[in-house]
Amino acid sequence: MIRIGLDGMGGDNAPAEIVKGAVEAAEKFNGDEIIYIFGDDKAISDELSKYRYDLDRIRAIHTTEVITNHDTPVKAVRRKKDSSMVVGINYLKDEKIDVFISAGNTGALMSGSTLILGRIRGIDRPALATLLPPMIGDKPLFLMDSGANSECKPGNLLEFGVMGSVYMNKVMGVENPRVGLVNIGAEESKGNTVTKAAYELLSQGNLNFVGNVEARDIPESPADVIVCDGFVGNVIIKLTEGIAMAFMHILKKKFSSGFAAKIGAALLMDKLREIKDMFDYSEYGGAPFLGVRGAVLKMHGSSNANAVKNTILKSRAYVENNVVKTIHDEIMKIAEEAEEDETV
Amino acid sequence: MIRIGLDGMGGDNAPAEIVKGAVEAAEKFNGDEIIYIFGDDKAISDELSKYRYDLDRIRAIHTTEVITNHDTPVKAVRRKKDSSMVVGINYLKDEKIDVFISAGNTGALMSGSTLILGRIRGIDRPALATLLPPMIGDKPLFLMDSGANSECKPGNLLEFGVMGSVYMNKVMGVENPRVGLVNIGAEESKGNTVTKAAYELLSQGNLNFVGNVEARDIPESPADVIVCDGFVGNVIIKLTEGIAMAFMHILKKKFSSGFAAKIGAALLMDKLREIKDMFDYSEYGGAPFLGVRGAVLKMHGSSNANAVKNTILKSRAYVENNVVKTIHDEIMKIAEEAEEDETV
Repeated sequence: MIRIGLDGMGGDNAPAEIVKGAVEAAEKFNGDEIIYIFGDDKAISDELSKYRYDLDRIRAIHTTEVITNHDTPVKAVRRKKDSSMVVGINYLKDEKIDVFISAGNTGALMSGSTLILGRIRGIDRPALATLLPPMIGDKPLFLMDSGANSECKPGNLLEFGVMGSVYMNKVMGVENPRVGLVNIGAEESKGNTVTKAAYELLSQGNLNFVGNVEARDIPESPADVIVCDGFVGNVIIKLTEGIAMAFMHILKKKFSSGFAAKIGAALLMDKLREIKDMFDYSEYGGAPFLGVRGAVLKMHGSSNANAVKNTILKSRAYVENNVVKTIHDEIMKIAEEAEEDETV
Repeated sequence: MIRIGLDGMGGDNAPAEIVKGAVEAAEKFNGDEIIYIFGDDKAISDELSKYRYDLDRIRAIHTTEVITNHDTPVKAVRRKKDSSMVVGINYLKDEKIDVFISAGNTGALMSGSTLILGRIRGIDRPALATLLPPMIGDKPLFLMDSGANSECKPGNLLEFGVMGSVYMNKVMGVENPRVGLVNIGAEESKGNTVTKAAYELLSQGNLNFVGNVEARDIPESPADVIVCDGFVGNVIIKLTEGIAMAFMHILKKKFSSGFAAKIGAALLMDKLREIKDMFDYSEYGGAPFLGVRGAVLKMHGSSNANAVKNTILKSRAYVENNVVKTIHDEIMKIAEEAEEDETV
């Protein structure tokens, strides 16, 4: 049985879209999966009552508090003990659920997971990943860290590479994932102190390290996993989002001025919709917060039912393939090899 | 008289497009400007002989060596004393020209300028700026540093703000330029150690500081100048370039599949060309390397004659408005105020 925990109160569209996504996911279940929705009993039940669903598949767990985006992460986790998020993470810790999914306050989800679940042994810094939709080609790109650690040591970037590699292999089914280092030049000698040292570490490990990746090449997915500190990762994700939005804005503006352009745009309606959909993150499921002792997935704050459904369905592979344990084993291997090197 | 030095051998299209651009610029001169083209006499003369031009406006200075993109910057500057670039920078130092423009090896231009010209007193780190074309609205965005310093202290970011502000005011004619700090959140408390401290410094000065700027908002030009370290700046510029190229690729692909789409695209031909032109950097002139004792402009390596022409024409404002001296005065003001604060 796979027990999936869902934060019913987190995100811009909670609880309506969260509950709807849960119902849609439950329809697709083929084993004995079950969803626990954490949140205000009345609010969740009201939403659930709108649908017909298998009562064995979805259950509500009553919680009385909500962590909002205005809350300070650590403080909120400490004080709002009966929030949907904190209760959910505690369920995960107590092994009453196998994975926890939330569209709520990112900082709170990360600090809550780290404080309550603890880090995987050997991992210094858990990190948040983002799956960037492919622009050219069809391979999504796993970017890590996308904002959890604004300052990193070289060893952290190696950890990100290991964790990202395990996730892409186990959950996304990528054979021998290619790992790249975000840098400001292709040559080994490029970069700042941290990336130069990280290049060395990444080269020595068992990873399929393909070297430096320049930001210019990101739209072509030159690797399956790219690693960087959370400051740079955050800039990459937000800039991509901003430029994509600006582009759609430009197309709309340009294509609606003049008669010929309007006709042209009408003929291209389908294609324009396809382009817009390319930047729709909701197909890819949530972003894992890797490095903590438990499977935690973060959804975009504006997630709709479709995103919720996809994240729930994808989360099964996360659980079934023992990602947390595999990360632990891989990190231990590296630690042992480093020890052997020292004793030689 | 304004004496403009031009590296005739630097860039992918040298010397042909460089010389052509010089001829086109000279046609627009309205005062007693003169262009000195540094490079192999024969190569430059051969190109010049293709055009009719005012002999009082363009002169060739013979040099025997060329610094290529394969050269290691500092080594090349030290060894290739008779290269078009090093001779040009020395002319600037000796006040035989007023500004030096090159499309050659960026690293060599930066180290050459720093070594030969020296830094402006009070400036710790000279930096390379880039003028990002506007995507929404019509205001270009001055980004600094775009790659000279991959590691920065908070004080460096303040210097970038001062230099960028002076340039946007004096050369681009922006009144009281708004200065923003690239960061991973809008709130003052966001960021890493360096950006947090830089926020404080930027708030205290005389700059029109508008706070943190998130990468998502960059396409809307939320400020006139944005400052960041050269690692982040490089990522922003290259990612913007990469996504723009990917988008044009996607449009082309989508709009050429199916009969209706092809007709639609034909009707939108003009608009598509306009969109492509939005990302044409050549209209904005070169990127200043600010903080050294002399006016140095870097052009994109792939600059064509139009970019060369525009850079030459823009460079006059750089010289006439005493940007180098104004930067010196502004930095001194800040240093004096800091001293006064200490003695109080």
